[in-house]
Amino acid sequence: MEKLYVIKIGGNIVDDEAKLSSFLKDFAKLNGKKILVHGGGKLATQLAAELNIPQQMIDGRRITDEATLRVVTMVFAGLINKNIVSALQANACDAIGLTGADGNAIRAHKRVKSNIDYGFAGDVDEVNLTLFTSLLDAGFTIVMAPITHDAKGQLLNTNADTIAQEIGRALGRQYAVQLIYSFEKSGVLMDADDDKTVIASMTPSYYADLKQKKVIFAGMIPKLDNAFRALNEGVDRVIIGKAEELPALISGNAGTTLRHE
Amino acid sequence: MEKLYVIKIGGNIVDDEAKLSSFLKDFAKLNGKKILVHGGGKLATQLAAELNIPQQMIDGRRITDEATLRVVTMVFAGLINKNIVSALQANACDAIGLTGADGNAIRAHKRVKSNIDYGFAGDVDEVNLTLFTSLLDAGFTIVMAPITHDAKGQLLNTNADTIAQEIGRALGRQYAVQLIYSFEKSGVLMDADDDKTVIASMTPSYYADLKQKKVIFAGMIPKLDNAFRALNEGVDRVIIGKAEELPALISGNAGTTLRHE
Repeated sequence: MEKLYVIKIGGNIVDDEAKLSSFLKDFAKLNGKKILVHGGGKLATQLAAELNIPQQMIDGRRITDEATLRVVTMVFAGLINKNIVSALQANACDAIGLTGADGNAIRAHKRVKSNIDYGFAGDVDEVNLTLFTSLLDAGFTIVMAPITHDAKGQLLNTNADTIAQEIGRALGRQYAVQLIYSFEKSGVLMDADDDKTVIASMTPSYYADLKQKKVIFAGMIPKLDNAFRALNEGVDRVIIGKAEELPALISGNAGTTLRHE
Repeated sequence: MEKLYVIKIGGNIVDDEAKLSSFLKDFAKLNGKKILVHGGGKLATQLAAELNIPQQMIDGRRITDEATLRVVTMVFAGLINKNIVSALQANACDAIGLTGADGNAIRAHKRVKSNIDYGFAGDVDEVNLTLFTSLLDAGFTIVMAPITHDAKGQLLNTNADTIAQEIGRALGRQYAVQLIYSFEKSGVLMDADDDKTVIASMTPSYYADLKQKKVIFAGMIPKLDNAFRALNEGVDRVIIGKAEELPALISGNAGTTLRHE
């Protein structure tokens, strides 16, 4: 199967103009089919503060009331997405920016209330495989904002990690998906305090072993559980590392690669 | 040649939730290939005010400094564009929202300073015919935000009327373009104070005649000059009237139609 890169960048890149510009140069040079998924939480929080819209985060998830939905739609789908697209165009990469509403790319539903009411937060129902493959086949690079819709006229705020994972799963049917999670550290570390102890490669059994030995603990566990789930659900390879090292991540000379057994 | 509708809606529709929703229902029902171009100036002015960014308008054109460019990118490309796209999806119309940067749809250059420095205002250089025709042929309805780029990484604020006209000109090579300008009045009026005196049809010679007799004057002249220029440059038909009357505008039962001699 043909390779497809699905690369997720978060706040530490998106919110830093110099880092973002340098990353986009590397990303533009990357040969082959590719999708960039971006967050941009800090800029949204900043605009909300300027507009006196109080923000509430629970376990790193934003509670999205109506005013906050307007803010994230403006910041993610407008400001960040279009600045990335225009920077990629300047680097000879024919990018097209989408939300889940565009071409019905990603349909979701408003998260069902449990103990917490997340407001206009979307849980993904379906990734439109036909749309993605036809745009990729036409030579476009897709830049995905973390906004979905419910196909009934409601936009929804959706976690960018989740979007990358769902795209990876769906497009895994058609491509050998290389899912790259950009991370503030160089990869999964043997010693959480030493950035030089990157674990180059992990299989599910090695991961189970490291969890048992408490080498991997706390916040890394849900991240890696999700990443291994993606691997089980059709993604060819997951790479975790610094977006600043994109070429080395791709060539296997940096970051942690999760592989099948 | 196949018909293509290029419909421009302005502030009186975009800024009014009920009118916009009703217009989008009519627009979604319209058979055939279609492009919607939207403005949204009032919402941008409102956000700028909330953020204490002073706005300066000269002859109805916004002076776009850096802070204002951020505002219009958020409001036009994010808030308005994505809400329109998601409302169209809910009405079974497979819409995709674009700025000029997406797929290099519309390349422009920063307006050259004359007496007035318009800041990050874009004058259109080229409409990407291949992109538009391939998306239209794939069955998408295009929703165009009035933001362009210079292909060097700079987003630019561009008048929505101009975008509609440039799209009409460029796509006129491939389609019989029906360019519809939504307007706060029912059409071009014989008596500017009486909305019942719509001139149903105008040719260039009849227009010249009405100008000479001062039936048409003031602000209508640049509007109609532009509209007749579009007609000369490849547009099949220009219709001017109320967006609220879209079906009647299309069937020729409302508004003013500008035709070739």
